[in-house]
Amino acid sequence: MNRKNDNIRYIKYTLTFFGVGIVMSLFTFCMAQQRAKIAHTPVVDLTLVGKITPTEKLFHRVDTNVFDDIPDAVKKRVVQSGGLAVAFKTNSPAIYAKWCTANTIASATMTAVAYRGLDLYIKRNGRWQYAGIARPRDGQECATTTIVRGMDNAEKECLLYLPLYDETTRLEVGVDEGSTMEAGAYPFQKRVLIYGSSIAQGASASRSGLAYPARLARETGVDFLNLGMGGSAKMEKPVVDMIASFDVDAFVLDCVPNSSPTIVSQRAAYMVETIRKKHPNAPIIVMQSVIRERGYFNLASGERVKHQNENIKKEVDKLLQKGVTNLHFISADDFLGHDHEGTVDGTHPNDLGFDRMIQVIKPKLTEILGVALN
Amino acid sequence: MNRKNDNIRYIKYTLTFFGVGIVMSLFTFCMAQQRAKIAHTPVVDLTLVGKITPTEKLFHRVDTNVFDDIPDAVKKRVVQSGGLAVAFKTNSPAIYAKWCTANTIASATMTAVAYRGLDLYIKRNGRWQYAGIARPRDGQECATTTIVRGMDNAEKECLLYLPLYDETTRLEVGVDEGSTMEAGAYPFQKRVLIYGSSIAQGASASRSGLAYPARLARETGVDFLNLGMGGSAKMEKPVVDMIASFDVDAFVLDCVPNSSPTIVSQRAAYMVETIRKKHPNAPIIVMQSVIRERGYFNLASGERVKHQNENIKKEVDKLLQKGVTNLHFISADDFLGHDHEGTVDGTHPNDLGFDRMIQVIKPKLTEILGVALN
Repeated sequence: MNRKNDNIRYIKYTLTFFGVGIVMSLFTFCMAQQRAKIAHTPVVDLTLVGKITPTEKLFHRVDTNVFDDIPDAVKKRVVQSGGLAVAFKTNSPAIYAKWCTANTIASATMTAVAYRGLDLYIKRNGRWQYAGIARPRDGQECATTTIVRGMDNAEKECLLYLPLYDETTRLEVGVDEGSTMEAGAYPFQKRVLIYGSSIAQGASASRSGLAYPARLARETGVDFLNLGMGGSAKMEKPVVDMIASFDVDAFVLDCVPNSSPTIVSQRAAYMVETIRKKHPNAPIIVMQSVIRERGYFNLASGERVKHQNENIKKEVDKLLQKGVTNLHFISADDFLGHDHEGTVDGTHPNDLGFDRMIQVIKPKLTEILGVALN
Repeated sequence: MNRKNDNIRYIKYTLTFFGVGIVMSLFTFCMAQQRAKIAHTPVVDLTLVGKITPTEKLFHRVDTNVFDDIPDAVKKRVVQSGGLAVAFKTNSPAIYAKWCTANTIASATMTAVAYRGLDLYIKRNGRWQYAGIARPRDGQECATTTIVRGMDNAEKECLLYLPLYDETTRLEVGVDEGSTMEAGAYPFQKRVLIYGSSIAQGASASRSGLAYPARLARETGVDFLNLGMGGSAKMEKPVVDMIASFDVDAFVLDCVPNSSPTIVSQRAAYMVETIRKKHPNAPIIVMQSVIRERGYFNLASGERVKHQNENIKKEVDKLLQKGVTNLHFISADDFLGHDHEGTVDGTHPNDLGFDRMIQVIKPKLTEILGVALN
């Protein structure tokens, strides 16, 4: 009996051993198959969204060889991909990305995903809706990752936002092999430039699709073009001349936060008049600076932003008195709400601050631009 | 003439050289003086806020030697300082911090400031108001920094929030030498435990003062104690027994996000009944899981959270039918609003999502807890 039991046990063990082996082999084979089944498409074959002007390097916002007289601090920012996105259509149940950025470290007041990652929206019930993010790899310039999976296989319109603060050097979008993949229709109409500071560039939205120009574009259908430049929106003459040369339909000027009260007084009029000369009928909308929350305690900081905002108001009033037409002004009083919870660091709106700012500026912008509210 | 000019030039150079030297020495001297003028106070001499239970290591939330049978994944989280803060009073025009954390890298969906930095609130016009953050140093465990400066020298009540997700190993608060510095009054009343997931711990608020338990405490005056444990709120028996042993006045149970639908059905009743046995009159408030935005595209993920939330509703209904008193239920339907912009990654609320969640739960909690809305 014991011998028989032993034999049975031996057969059982052997079968189990082979069984486990076969399952493991199948699993490895399936995983390998799954990995092999991703088809990547470079962005040149898709639709690049949010470009202000053509550039030699695909993911730069401005070609620094063409505009070679702008300050170095500005050059550093305009090569960052803040505001760019890729539109495509696919019926793939999963979407992947392979991308590289020039740097590996995010600032302490932004998420790495916003700074150097990707953010996917998919159209659902006629509206762009968040679908997934691509996390960058810590300490690595490049990453390959799954953004979303497990979807049905209906064809979907997709919009993938690039990193806000890093220079994107490469991007390919992946779908399951055998799925459709093609360039998407350009999703927005009209072209409205937003020239601004770090706040316009997107600091400190938690992901790139939540930067305020991106949210405004999705919610209004207008192509708000992100020319935010962290710390460097100072209305220098070469920058103003560059901006005035752009082929756009309207200008939002959110450049007060980076400009001292004196710079505001010295340069704002030249900026508005130069744009007006090149674009006789384009709406020009000047925004006050987000009020720096830190200024409620740091008295000098509080005074500075007060004077910045007083001075820009004076400049716009003078220009209006001089007869500049289609020039508009948005006061910052209610941008952040009034509970002081709308910033990450007393300067840069968090997603709550941006939401409040959007509730204030969206109706004004859509009225000025003549767009129906979405 | 040339000789005379050369001499004058030589004298000028010499004077300039000495002048620059003197200015530089003075600058260095002043900087050294300024650095020497900070007086640091360790937290043991101030008021530690948000402690659930005494611990051997000051900045742990639970003593893992005392509760040594809880799972390792839970132990890993309860030593993180999420929800702790330091209360002090000072008339210093500047506030500094010297602190260390056990790790150096933040997750890709949180800011480094929220993960391992500090967040200062100061009472202004009778309300706690954001005053400044302390940025951690990239790649370094320790940092010394100025949180706020340039204030007037009226005495101020301060509340400094510790890192949400890292283990804080050291913290000293600095003020200008010669300023007053003393322990603050404990700022909150009653003790309400929030047992929850990463969301309760604070992912992904942009800074630690914006985690929802911290915001609720400031806005209601109630001491909401953060027992959020990223990924590990699974109602295990030793954890439930530990929670039931805590000396608190009420329980908010936000632990559905980490528990599978099956675990919810298996463990929720034991949790509620165990707490009720030890705390016959304490309000017990059960919250549904934040609905995962990713679930609108990833169908399996959508089904999972639907079943988690259905099952917790069933369990609470059964307990109510069994006669458990002072048991309350909060539905998650409106937690994130309805524009799908309230998360960083489809799971974790950003500051916008947290704000919406607070607007839903705060009136319910204050009604249940009998606290006047602030």
